[in-house]
Parts: sequence; structure tokens; C-alpha cells
Amino acid sequence: RYCYEKNLAVTPQGGNTGLVGGSVPVFDEIILSTALMNRIISFDEVSGILVCQAGCVLEKLNEYVEERGFIMPLDLGAKGSCHIGGNVATNAGGLRLLRYGSLRGTVLGLEVVLADGSILDCLTSLRKDNTGYDLKQLFIGSEGTLGVITAVSILCPQKPKAVNLAFLGCQSYPKVLETFSTCRAMLGEILSAFEFMDEKCMELVEKHLKLSSPVPGSPFYILIETSGSNSAHDEEKLNGFLEQAMASGLVTDGTVATDATKIKASHRFLLRKSLLGFGALWSLRERITEALTRDGCVYKYDVSLPVAKLYDLVTDTRARLGRRAKNVVGYGHLGDGNLHLNITAESYSHSLLDAIEPFVYEWTARCNGSISAEHGLGFKKKQFIGYSKPREAVQLMRHFKALLDPKGILNPYKMLPSAP
Amino acid sequence: RYCYEKNLAVTPQGGNTGLVGGSVPVFDEIILSTALMNRIISFDEVSGILVCQAGCVLEKLNEYVEERGFIMPLDLGAKGSCHIGGNVATNAGGLRLLRYGSLRGTVLGLEVVLADGSILDCLTSLRKDNTGYDLKQLFIGSEGTLGVITAVSILCPQKPKAVNLAFLGCQSYPKVLETFSTCRAMLGEILSAFEFMDEKCMELVEKHLKLSSPVPGSPFYILIETSGSNSAHDEEKLNGFLEQAMASGLVTDGTVATDATKIKASHRFLLRKSLLGFGALWSLRERITEALTRDGCVYKYDVSLPVAKLYDLVTDTRARLGRRAKNVVGYGHLGDGNLHLNITAESYSHSLLDAIEPFVYEWTARCNGSISAEHGLGFKKKQFIGYSKPREAVQLMRHFKALLDPKGILNPYKMLPSAP
Repeated sequence: RYCYEKNLAVTPQGGNTGLVGGSVPVFDEIILSTALMNRIISFDEVSGILVCQAGCVLEKLNEYVEERGFIMPLDLGAKGSCHIGGNVATNAGGLRLLRYGSLRGTVLGLEVVLADGSILDCLTSLRKDNTGYDLKQLFIGSEGTLGVITAVSILCPQKPKAVNLAFLGCQSYPKVLETFSTCRAMLGEILSAFEFMDEKCMELVEKHLKLSSPVPGSPFYILIETSGSNSAHDEEKLNGFLEQAMASGLVTDGTVATDATKIKASHRFLLRKSLLGFGALWSLRERITEALTRDGCVYKYDVSLPVAKLYDLVTDTRARLGRRAKNVVGYGHLGDGNLHLNITAESYSHSLLDAIEPFVYEWTARCNGSISAEHGLGFKKKQFIGYSKPREAVQLMRHFKALLDPKGILNPYKMLPSAP
Repeated sequence: RYCYEKNLAVTPQGGNTGLVGGSVPVFDEIILSTALMNRIISFDEVSGILVCQAGCVLEKLNEYVEERGFIMPLDLGAKGSCHIGGNVATNAGGLRLLRYGSLRGTVLGLEVVLADGSILDCLTSLRKDNTGYDLKQLFIGSEGTLGVITAVSILCPQKPKAVNLAFLGCQSYPKVLETFSTCRAMLGEILSAFEFMDEKCMELVEKHLKLSSPVPGSPFYILIETSGSNSAHDEEKLNGFLEQAMASGLVTDGTVATDATKIKASHRFLLRKSLLGFGALWSLRERITEALTRDGCVYKYDVSLPVAKLYDLVTDTRARLGRRAKNVVGYGHLGDGNLHLNITAESYSHSLLDAIEPFVYEWTARCNGSISAEHGLGFKKKQFIGYSKPREAVQLMRHFKALLDPKGILNPYKMLPSAP
């Protein structure tokens, strides 16, 4: 309220783990940190509904609900420092979206401070509520431009009793896709992640982080996770799938691990002797970002595409850039149609950037994809919204922004493009 | 556009199956029917994404995607006549919400005609898209007051290979709750419905529809459905749960059925010889509405409450009304905290209504419940929004309405209360 009266601009900041500059001030905005708002307000052990303040760190929340037999419905690499308020403000996706859906379904209520300092209390804990417009949806994914999220009510799924992981090598992208279809049919309701990475990712992870691949050189690697309520059933389903995938040549090699903290004496189906445990296998996928940072200057893209065409963007970009790029790599949440395309170079070069953009955005728009699947637009990508949204939609967004933040003090210069 | 220029009010109407008068004109509005917009635009057999026009009937869509190995993510009693556009406009819940989540997660895109006749094209087919505000969310559940939905893009889950049903008798409401917890822990990811009905519902269904209960007189009945990818595993889980529920006295009697069109030679775990098949067991629950209509004049309430207190509303209402009501019954989607409270009387009486309202709304508000879980507010309940939403929220809704429909021609006199 003070800021509204004095016309002072604010930038809400949580864990500051974003990639598009959404939580970084542009000029002289005041940083409004949610770090001290880290209290858990309530947790219902029957329904699994957690109500907490916006500054709670995702990993801490997960530990808290795990002790009570539940898990958070989202999980991402930055979990150790990102805040739940920021997760909601950016509509974070991550590793569990395939199974538990997006925050638009799992967030049940929000408390939001509006631009004029008034508090909008929609912090309910109901799975179903059709009384009027669902206002909280407007704040989910609005990147702090319409209001500051101060508390969150979220539905947590039950903690699975058995978690298995398979890390597989695949000879071509079409075989990756076919493995996905087979896997979905045979693992059904227990499939909780289907991630992929190309051999370039593996090379960087091996080179910069000294991790070693559990599977010899393949053009593509797949990480499949199952989460279920009966370990014997889950292993039988996973083994059935693996046998079929190997027999039909979809997968050439692989290894399996079980979350040992959960089931100690579990039988392991081994394609080869697994030298790596559950956590180590996940690290190969989760630490790609870190390996890229050590490889040089990184140009990062996070796009949604129809799965059939998804990897063509990597191939086309690689061909286009040739020797100007050090490495062009592709990985991501294949099960959700979400590709992370990353390009590294020895140093920043404006001409390299010009060769990448708008090429990547135009390519994505031609396939009716999204130029930001889960990272938002922030400051860096706001000018490119037109590649994914029609003019009428952007116009309507401007009206909402003007209605909720007439003085433009909430996270200015973010998400919406400068006026034409 | 014509209506906007001439200041003519319109009421969008789909299958006209709503219960709160949301699709019925109040004065002299033009009815805008979507019945002829019944074309399927596309279906992707890899991702399960369906794009269709708003006038498609839900059951027809389900048949269409079932032939291709998928199912619609929602199912409700009115499926034979309700339209997908109306389902989205009212954010319909129904029988599968427990498993597949709400339309806010499964609807991926919408095409909407705005008040001035312009078309807002957000009909994308991406699981993840964080480019700007998620405008479609505002139209989901807005009951046609902000725009007319003309096409929908929706994510369909895979058709389960095995579907089982258990119909059980329970001696008290606390035992119903305990059965729910046990069931969730033991059936886990295959649980697809947990419905309940009280003995009054059963009496009415037996009396007016000549259906017979497969289980002798119990104060409460539970209907549990499992949907999974492996019939042997699913039966083993269901049998394990039933054995435990019987042994611990949570459940006193019951019967089981398997969706015979899917698995012909399946083994059946029988607590008693089942005289009723899969469809007949579902009918006991789905046809309660019909039995109520035949019982007299019906006063209908659809509330969300914390599950622990949910049935107290039925008991309290029954005690309050005494002999003034013919029957007071409770049933609904227990797994989602959604109670359908229905009161019948020989004929309509204003004094009986006064005894029910605002009693039911005040009771619900004291528990921080919702006075409309899945049916919306429409014309009949708009004045009661204050029981579930704070003043600031209603104010903001009015601003959105004014922004998107400045002349007030879209479904007037609905959802938002008359100005104070």
C-alpha cells in the first residue's frame, strides 16, 4: 500500500532461480523478498491439502509432507532453493507434471496482495468450487505482474510405496517415440516420468561433471520412472515392458534401479549390472544444466512442440549453426512435449544470437508450439509473445494488466511486450 | 457482432441439462444454441488430444475416442445430452474428477466469441504453454457471462484395460470415511471413483425405479471403481482391500462386478452372488436424481465441505426440517468432498424454502465450504455468492465482467449478484 501511494515499483523475488529474468529488477524497482514468509499454515493428513506461506522452499515442503505420507505435486531441479510462491507465479512444470498434472489443477487456493495493497483472500482448501470466476488462475503463471502471491493452498498426492527407475539407450528418435507409446500402454497409471536426453548431453555430463554413463554410447537416452502402491505389481509391469522393448529392438541397453530408501530388499531386474543407484541415475538428467554452464556461454530455449517433430528443432538448429556453436543439445520432458534446446559457445556473440533468434521462435510458431513451455517470458522473452499468442489475446492481457495494476508498479517491464 | 451492435442480449444454450438455470433466458434474451456446432476438428492418437466444436454431445465424444483407445476425462449422468461447450462453461465435475482432475487441467485450449463478436483463438493443443496470462481459465466456469465458447481442445486419458466395481454396505459415516482412507492407501493409482449414498437414496431408487439393492439394508452404501492397465494386478489390489475392509468390520457386505465388455473371462471376487452387472450397479448411483424427481418437488444443493463434516449437513438439515420435508437425502462424490443434498416435499412451499435457505448456505460457509461445488451459480444461486467468496473477489469479478462485456449482453442476470 505504501508503494502504491508513493508510486514505487516492486519486483517480487523468491528463490531467484528463474531463467528469463522474471525476478530481477530492470531499473530501480524495490525487491520484495518472500524469504521470511516461510511458515506452514496447515496440513490435512486425510485430504493431503497443504496451506503455506509463499516463501517456503519446495524441498522443505516436500520433506514435511513426506513425513506424513504425501509428496508435493511438483518437483524440479531447483527444488533446494526455489520458493512455492515463485513456482505458482511462474506456473512451474518440472518432472512430475506427466503424472500429477499442472499447478492449475493442484493449486486449490491463493492469497494475493494486489497493486493497491489490498489482500485478495482466495485461500480455500476445496477440490471443487464453482462460485464465480476462478480468480486464482489469473495469478498462476502471471509472473508477479498482477499481484504478489503471499500464501498457497495445494493438493498433495499420496507418497508412492514403490518407485522404480529405468535408464535406457535408444538408437534413433523414432525409436524413442515408439518406446514412449509402448511404455504408456504397458506401464499405464504407474508411469511418473518419461525424460529424454541426446548423446551430446551425456558427453557434457561425463566431461564436466565426471559422471559416467551406465549404458554405452547411444544416440539417445531415456529415463523412465514408475511410482505405484504395490512394488511387486510395479516391478512386474516394468519387467514386462523392458522385455518387450528389448525384444523388439526399441531399446538396445539399459539399467534399472529402485528407490532404496523405500524398499530395501527389492528384487532388481537387471539388463546389466547396475553400478549406479537411484539418485545417481536421476543426476545424469538433472545435472545437465550444470554441465552446460561449465561448457561456456549458454543460449537456453524451452519450447513445447508436437512430440513427433520435437527433435527436428535440435537437428535443424545444429545444421544451421554449424561450427559457430560449440554444442547444440536437446533434452527434456518428452512425455509433456517439452524440449529444452541449449546452445553453447566459447563466449557471447551477437551474431550467433542473431542466427538463433528469431529462427527458433519462427520454427516453433510454424508447428503451433509454445516459445515458453514452463519458464515464462519474464524480461528476456516478452517481445516474442506474438509467436505463440494472437494479437487479440495480447490485447486482452494488456487490459487485465491495466485493470489490476493501473499504475504499472508490479514487476514492470516483464511478460507483456512494450507497447507497439 | 450483430447482437453487440443492436444491444441484443444472448443466452448460450447447449444440452440444457444444468440445475441452476444458467442456460435459460430470464427475460427476452436470444437463445444462442450450439447444437449445430457438433463437428470433431481433430484427434491425435499419440497424445490423445481432441479438438472439437462446442456443440458435441459428451457421450458421442466418448464413443469416438474410445474407438481409438482413449476416454473423455469427464463423465456425468447427463452425458447423453450435455454438450462439451457447456461442460467447459460450467466447469463440470462429475464421476472421474477424483482420478483425472478438473477441466482446468485437462482443457488445453478454447476458441471463444467475445461480446463484440470478435474471436479469441486460444485453441492450442499443448500440455505446457507459459506465454502470458492463461486467458482460457477465465472462460472455464464463467457460465457464458464473459464469452461464448465455440471450440475446445482437451486432453483425453488412455482407456483403461480393466475396470472393476465394488458396491458395499457400511454401518456408519465414520466407517465410510475410514473405508475411504483404507481404499486410497490400498488401491492407490487405480482408484477412479469413490461415491457414496445414504439409505434414503436407496429407498427412493427401489421405490420409484424398481431397482433392487444388491446388498441388504445398510445406513450407507459405497461405490468404488478401479481403472487400470493390468486386470490381474487390479483384481489382486481390489481383493486385498476388500478382505481387509471386511475383516476389520469397516464394510459389512458387498458385491463386485467387472466391466464385462472389456474382460470377458475375468475372475470375480464375490462377497455374495452378484445378481447385478457393472452397468446395473452404476445405475443405483447415477439414477438417484431421477428417483428424486419422481418423489415430489425437489430442493437441490451441491456443496463442497471438508469430508469429516460432510454428512453432518444432511443430519442437521433432516433434524431442522422434521416432518415438513418428505425426504432429506445425501449422496455424492465423497472422494472430492462434494455432497449432493436433496430435499423432497409433496409440493413447493415458500416456508419450507425459507427453512432451508439460508440455513444450508450459512452452515456451509461456517465450514469454509463452497455453496456450489460443480453446478455453478446461474440465475438461481447468484445472490448467495457472498457465502463462498469475499467482497473483494466479487468486486474483481464485476470488473472482469465489465471489461469483457461492457454492454452486459452475455447471459445477463446470471452468476454475479445484482448490484448492491
